[in-house]
Amino acid sequence: MQKLKIVTIGGGSSYTPELMEGMIKRYAAFPVTEICLVDIPDGAEKLAIVGKMAQRMWDSSPYDVKVTTTLDRRAALKDADFVTTQFRVGLLEARIKDERIPLSYGIMGQETNGPGGLFKALRTIPVILDIVQDMKDVCPNAWLINFTNPSGMVTEAIIRYGHWDKVIGLCNVPVNAMMKEPKLIDKTTGELIFEFAGLNHFHWHRVSDAHGHDVTPDIIEAMYHKDDGIPKNIHKVPFIKEQLLDMNLIPCGYHRYYYRAEEMLAHSIEEYNTIGTRAQQVKQIEHELFELYKDPNLDHKPEQLSKRGGAYYSDAACEAMMSIYSNKNTCMVVSTVNRGAVPDLPADCVVEVSANLSGKGALPLAFGHLEAPEAGWLQLMKNMELGICKAAVTGNYGLLLNTVFMNPLVASGATAKQVVDELLLAHAKYLPQFADTIAKLKADHVTVKDPVVNELLATGK
Amino acid sequence: MQKLKIVTIGGGSSYTPELMEGMIKRYAAFPVTEICLVDIPDGAEKLAIVGKMAQRMWDSSPYDVKVTTTLDRRAALKDADFVTTQFRVGLLEARIKDERIPLSYGIMGQETNGPGGLFKALRTIPVILDIVQDMKDVCPNAWLINFTNPSGMVTEAIIRYGHWDKVIGLCNVPVNAMMKEPKLIDKTTGELIFEFAGLNHFHWHRVSDAHGHDVTPDIIEAMYHKDDGIPKNIHKVPFIKEQLLDMNLIPCGYHRYYYRAEEMLAHSIEEYNTIGTRAQQVKQIEHELFELYKDPNLDHKPEQLSKRGGAYYSDAACEAMMSIYSNKNTCMVVSTVNRGAVPDLPADCVVEVSANLSGKGALPLAFGHLEAPEAGWLQLMKNMELGICKAAVTGNYGLLLNTVFMNPLVASGATAKQVVDELLLAHAKYLPQFADTIAKLKADHVTVKDPVVNELLATGK
Amino acid sequence: MQKLKIVTIGGGSSYTPELMEGMIKRYAAFPVTEICLVDIPDGAEKLAIVGKMAQRMWDSSPYDVKVTTTLDRRAALKDADFVTTQFRVGLLEARIKDERIPLSYGIMGQETNGPGGLFKALRTIPVILDIVQDMKDVCPNAWLINFTNPSGMVTEAIIRYGHWDKVIGLCNVPVNAMMKEPKLIDKTTGELIFEFAGLNHFHWHRVSDAHGHDVTPDIIEAMYHKDDGIPKNIHKVPFIKEQLLDMNLIPCGYHRYYYRAEEMLAHSIEEYNTIGTRAQQVKQIEHELFELYKDPNLDHKPEQLSKRGGAYYSDAACEAMMSIYSNKNTCMVVSTVNRGAVPDLPADCVVEVSANLSGKGALPLAFGHLEAPEAGWLQLMKNMELGICKAAVTGNYGLLLNTVFMNPLVASGATAKQVVDELLLAHAKYLPQFADTIAKLKADHVTVKDPVVNELLATGK
Amino acid sequence: MQKLKIVTIGGGSSYTPELMEGMIKRYAAFPVTEICLVDIPDGAEKLAIVGKMAQRMWDSSPYDVKVTTTLDRRAALKDADFVTTQFRVGLLEARIKDERIPLSYGIMGQETNGPGGLFKALRTIPVILDIVQDMKDVCPNAWLINFTNPSGMVTEAIIRYGHWDKVIGLCNVPVNAMMKEPKLIDKTTGELIFEFAGLNHFHWHRVSDAHGHDVTPDIIEAMYHKDDGIPKNIHKVPFIKEQLLDMNLIPCGYHRYYYRAEEMLAHSIEEYNTIGTRAQQVKQIEHELFELYKDPNLDHKPEQLSKRGGAYYSDAACEAMMSIYSNKNTCMVVSTVNRGAVPDLPADCVVEVSANLSGKGALPLAFGHLEAPEAGWLQLMKNMELGICKAAVTGNYGLLLNTVFMNPLVASGATAKQVVDELLLAHAKYLPQFADTIAKLKADHVTVKDPVVNELLATGK
Repeated sequence: MQKLKIVTIGGGSSYTPELMEGMIKRYAAFPVTEICLVDIPDGAEKLAIVGKMAQRMWDSSPYDVKVTTTLDRRAALKDADFVTTQFRVGLLEARIKDERIPLSYGIMGQETNGPGGLFKALRTIPVILDIVQDMKDVCPNAWLINFTNPSGMVTEAIIRYGHWDKVIGLCNVPVNAMMKEPKLIDKTTGELIFEFAGLNHFHWHRVSDAHGHDVTPDIIEAMYHKDDGIPKNIHKVPFIKEQLLDMNLIPCGYHRYYYRAEEMLAHSIEEYNTIGTRAQQVKQIEHELFELYKDPNLDHKPEQLSKRGGAYYSDAACEAMMSIYSNKNTCMVVSTVNRGAVPDLPADCVVEVSANLSGKGALPLAFGHLEAPEAGWLQLMKNMELGICKAAVTGNYGLLLNTVFMNPLVASGATAKQVVDELLLAHAKYLPQFADTIAKLKADHVTVKDPVVNELLATGK
Repeated sequence: MQKLKIVTIGGGSSYTPELMEGMIKRYAAFPVTEICLVDIPDGAEKLAIVGKMAQRMWDSSPYDVKVTTTLDRRAALKDADFVTTQFRVGLLEARIKDERIPLSYGIMGQETNGPGGLFKALRTIPVILDIVQDMKDVCPNAWLINFTNPSGMVTEAIIRYGHWDKVIGLCNVPVNAMMKEPKLIDKTTGELIFEFAGLNHFHWHRVSDAHGHDVTPDIIEAMYHKDDGIPKNIHKVPFIKEQLLDMNLIPCGYHRYYYRAEEMLAHSIEEYNTIGTRAQQVKQIEHELFELYKDPNLDHKPEQLSKRGGAYYSDAACEAMMSIYSNKNTCMVVSTVNRGAVPDLPADCVVEVSANLSGKGALPLAFGHLEAPEAGWLQLMKNMELGICKAAVTGNYGLLLNTVFMNPLVASGATAKQVVDELLLAHAKYLPQFADTIAKLKADHVTVKDPVVNELLATGK
Repeated sequence: MQKLKIVTIGGGSSYTPELMEGMIKRYAAFPVTEICLVDIPDGAEKLAIVGKMAQRMWDSSPYDVKVTTTLDRRAALKDADFVTTQFRVGLLEARIKDERIPLSYGIMGQETNGPGGLFKALRTIPVILDIVQDMKDVCPNAWLINFTNPSGMVTEAIIRYGHWDKVIGLCNVPVNAMMKEPKLIDKTTGELIFEFAGLNHFHWHRVSDAHGHDVTPDIIEAMYHKDDGIPKNIHKVPFIKEQLLDMNLIPCGYHRYYYRAEEMLAHSIEEYNTIGTRAQQVKQIEHELFELYKDPNLDHKPEQLSKRGGAYYSDAACEAMMSIYSNKNTCMVVSTVNRGAVPDLPADCVVEVSANLSGKGALPLAFGHLEAPEAGWLQLMKNMELGICKAAVTGNYGLLLNTVFMNPLVASGATAKQVVDELLLAHAKYLPQFADTIAKLKADHVTVKDPVVNELLATGK
Repeated sequence: MQKLKIVTIGGGSSYTPELMEGMIKRYAAFPVTEICLVDIPDGAEKLAIVGKMAQRMWDSSPYDVKVTTTLDRRAALKDADFVTTQFRVGLLEARIKDERIPLSYGIMGQETNGPGGLFKALRTIPVILDIVQDMKDVCPNAWLINFTNPSGMVTEAIIRYGHWDKVIGLCNVPVNAMMKEPKLIDKTTGELIFEFAGLNHFHWHRVSDAHGHDVTPDIIEAMYHKDDGIPKNIHKVPFIKEQLLDMNLIPCGYHRYYYRAEEMLAHSIEEYNTIGTRAQQVKQIEHELFELYKDPNLDHKPEQLSKRGGAYYSDAACEAMMSIYSNKNTCMVVSTVNRGAVPDLPADCVVEVSANLSGKGALPLAFGHLEAPEAGWLQLMKNMELGICKAAVTGNYGLLLNTVFMNPLVASGATAKQVVDELLLAHAKYLPQFADTIAKLKADHVTVKDPVVNELLATGK
């Protein structure tokens, strides 16, 4: 039997059981021989819990696969065939900061492509570039399957600054759409043709039926009568119908932040003031999940994981790995190099598009030009992504301000600058590239306002 | 002597005396033989006042030029050599609506490329396309010099939908920058090389000295110590210095709305709640100006006009006409077809750039690619312009919403939609292309909230 | 059972039996109910022979399908589901002229993208636009599957000037490559990943194995040791190996005309002077084929058809129709709208690329930028195609000259102009758009030099 | 008085007197203080003659300027303000090889963008990159004014591989056009507006009169009745009128090689067989010029220099230097970075276009898209240039073949490969980057056929 080693960075994540389930389900076509879960010292406890849980899942399967855990990333990566990344630099506490600091000033945090997500990119990119460096040394033939958010920006940095092409960026949002939308018009997924184009958490799609007829308007219409498949972690405010019918494209759930900015912000502020932001809620869910995972009798993915918000993320990762491994030419939606597929953006940047996945990786399907409004939004957001990737590797403060101000969720000005400054301070531990700026902020006695964040900082988090 | 006929649409404007002054000053190179001021019936009184004032200015000059006034636009256009447009559909009352309706919901109005400006475009484009149709019929060789705002979108519509290429869009903002910035670094305009690129009221420029050294950083630095030449009609909040130094470009004054959105909005809301919005202030200034113009002894442009905010607009128009007429190859900043000059935008759209002006019109100077943040902003704004031009000719409500939501000054959602709906209602008289939508809004009992606007509507304005 | 009607224009072609075979083979997934073969009066005899032969093929199959023949194209098209086009305006005699007139002056004729092919485009485009007009009227939901050459230019004209999007342009060259190349490196087609990009008869491809490793160099190497799959109708001169290794792409067989122009011309001149050009040879093969087809006992495609040069053309057509009909998402190489797939060309032009074929038609796979030499060749050839399409619909003689001179097989100048003039004269019957130019040529006593062409003309062909 | 030092590399050229004349004429605006002529040891004798002649020219002027000569390039470059390059690697003997080797096989040599010119690029680029390296060290603020041919490719290499932006590529062809064409339609240069776009020796232009009316067709028409200003060194075969009228652009003289390839080749072959190729003729002219230059009484540019073919080259260089030095904003046609001016080519490549010349260097005027045939030619030729620049720095033989075969004057195949091989052999001394390939050719006993070239080689040239 041929070796097939999977290394999962951030292996102590609560998502790991879904990943195991995905691999068990696909074992025939994707006969894993070794799984290594890697985490950092701060995650050692969770890693131990998840590692045992994962092993129990395999033990209860018909397959003899060994799951190992380690804190030595470089050793783990040795001879890997696939590396999946699902780590979170600074853990959920960092996400709490990403969300609460902006909201403490009435600005949306949003941890993917909102201001919070931009700081997540600043923290994550240096780490992922380190991982890529390790991979060049010890597993140069491996594929990197990234689902650490912001997945699009991280994938962009891996390719642009890490010069590593064997990478696929993944997301569960398109998977969800393709599973839920057919039901809205009494079809099955196989009967419909989906074409996605855009960026991670900022893509649109159109849908045709098996005869090539555009059924996008039918799905839009149905979205207002039936459940429209908004991801668990996004507030359920509907898009404005006239707008959707005009664009004749279906936005992704995260577009709510941009097309219904007012309501999304109001909802986030309400949560901020009451039950806590999403990260705080997730922390509670995670706590419950880990309690479950500790149960030595639990040997399958518990139902509660679906509340976590990332359902199908790991399943998509397994599907992608299997398609690459077995050269299966599956059509999936992934973050990959544009190559012209979205001609409104440069051919060398990362986009999220429908693509054929095979042993060669992702070959994107050309989508053609978007109409003016979508093209404009997309170009803004991609350039924001490019700006933040550059800021992440250069530590340029002026560029950071310039880029954050591009984000349509941010009203530029003194308050926004204060938010940027507080985020820099609060994440100081994970932003060595901004050390000089942060020192200057401290010297200027800039302080964080949000009490929850201050509590975290007080305990060294 | 050769005929040289100038027709000014919106001739009853308070700017007309500056236009006269500009022509008198340039008479040697631009020997006007006939000036016809055109206006609409609602502007008849102002037209009469301005017409007499204009004639007095010429009479006190060494030149024998006759100024005529008329309400018959088509007759006036006959055999024109240059047509200048400075009209305002719906007069200042419409601008009051553009500004107050958004502000009544805490959203910036901004009458150029903000939400207010988008409605100004919706009102103006059908009228300008009518004028172009007249020009095709009665003065097919004339040049159209547009300084009706939003000048970039109006110029785009003239070319894209009017299929009329002999047009120059003008603005006084670059003129002001080129006059004031040299002094900041103890130079003269002639010693510096300015390169502008972008859109009307959304352009950046870089500056080199006579030896080709980039002095952009010096000017930025000096802007924080000396008067930075912010136009009269824009609140004087400074740009954030780190941001400017990173981009190493000088934004235009209107960029404040986008780079200091918070402060500009706060200032506008304060004015809204106290002394009235800019349009209301301008109305008072205009009233005073017209009182002055009535003085039968006044035969030169009064000093007070400079408070109006559009200083050098008309002078730029005269300079442009003279350059075209005498094939002078002057370098000016104008709105014209891109032709590749700004490679981040399509070659066939209208941009505002440095250009050589000659008998052929404007030949733009190629600027090269912008960095990611500027490219992103620019592409967003240009696509917004393209969206609004299309909405103006189609009356498509979904596209209108989709386009207004692109504007970074607008937080999308129910309130923004309400603002759009109220603006449609308030401008009903000037938006025939949206008649069906407006009828539906009325049927749905949508009403305008702002009391000042309601007063205007009550009096049929 | 649902209706599934196929109409074949140029149904009297010798290729029709392969088309029948392809449909019989795929009957389960593509249950044809009606086949109508259409031809022109000059082809009535062949149509009758082929019609009977086709019916015999179905009769010897397990399926009950009726083949009808007609000269009334518009009536035939009524309610068609798929229309295939394989007609040749002016029959083989026209191809003889396309080949012999240039060769009579030592210039390559080449009936696809050489000068001969450009004239084939001029003759074919007006006819195909007529067909499209009929389809709009009587079968607006049908798909047009074109394999009339020059397939790329014809497809371009259908979309650009016919405004008909439901079209697929087909060619057998990629099919052949994908069948023969795997064997060169002891692989099967299914084990390899092919990526094609370019134009019809002017595309390159790269090949990866199932692990994503680039095996293009291995195939290139093997091409010099084993049979390299050059199409029957192309002289077997090998590519220069250093050139191929540098580009690391595999050109198509037709690239020989451009990469080994000297040898291909020498070979064509030799045939011109001895056994006759390819068209003359084909005429003999066709004669033999029709003798076979007349045999009332023949009820399957005869082996001899493979000598004809177009093997797999019809099979590719059947595969394409089946994939569209049954929404099968097959990966094929087709001529379709670029949509960005080849970013060195505009997104709205027709390219030949790997694509997913489904009920929506072709969704091309983005290839990314080509290296400078390939990009340059491609841009030249595509612009030549665009020039000839425009000349075909406008009848502009200056544009025709300008376009023909672009072709790298043509040394521009007086002789090339003479060749253009003689081709116009010789094809006068089929080039009504150039009637004025042709009249002028006749008035100037321009005459055709080649004796074989003159003989054809003398007999009214 | 401020220092203004000019260094001329290849100072021993026969063109130097024109350069002196240009500087003397412009002394008021361009007050040169020091001129240093540099050459290589093989050119020492000519350098001495020219150096004295140059000094005599200044001595007979009202200005006190010292001309020095040296073989120490690096020392000469110290503190230069402007460096002009007019050297010829391998002297005229190399050009003889560039022309005769291709012609010995019936292929055009053409020393600018024909096959000969491609080899000139291969020889020149390494040398110019060396010069740039010296300039970075000893005169980092100097401007490089290149008129060594092929000027476009050399300028491209300086920017792309030398990373040196302060460079202007010059050519006399546009100057000639702008001087001669106005007379054809009874106008003066100042009354017309010229817009050039394309590449060095491969550009087109359109012309408007002072009223903006397109007079391109008038000039085309007149070219067939009057002297059309074909450069001295190009055979006078007229363009085909219908072709020009269709494109409505005026090609440059060198376009004859591409639009009348047949006649140009025939003429070159005739010269090859009789009076010798252009290089051989030039050698004779040069000999005569140097005899004249030796005359100690000659103190002005002799009339005979105009026969040399490059008239106005040096004058253009002086005009460019003066415009940069005095920040004059002159409109000239130069090779510079595209920046979008020709949107059919990438923004970062070098083009030859109309540009404003000032202290900042060249700011190109945006031309807009070309029609399909011109776009196709241009894209082919630019990609050929990019290929040859890369081959010049990498010494890649496969890329060299691939690039040479792109040239429309070359019929690809065995003979063209033989020509490439012979050129490599004949230029071995100047092509160290191809040393391995050349060694292999020698091992394979490849030899040069042309007897004149063999004679040169026998004498070590």
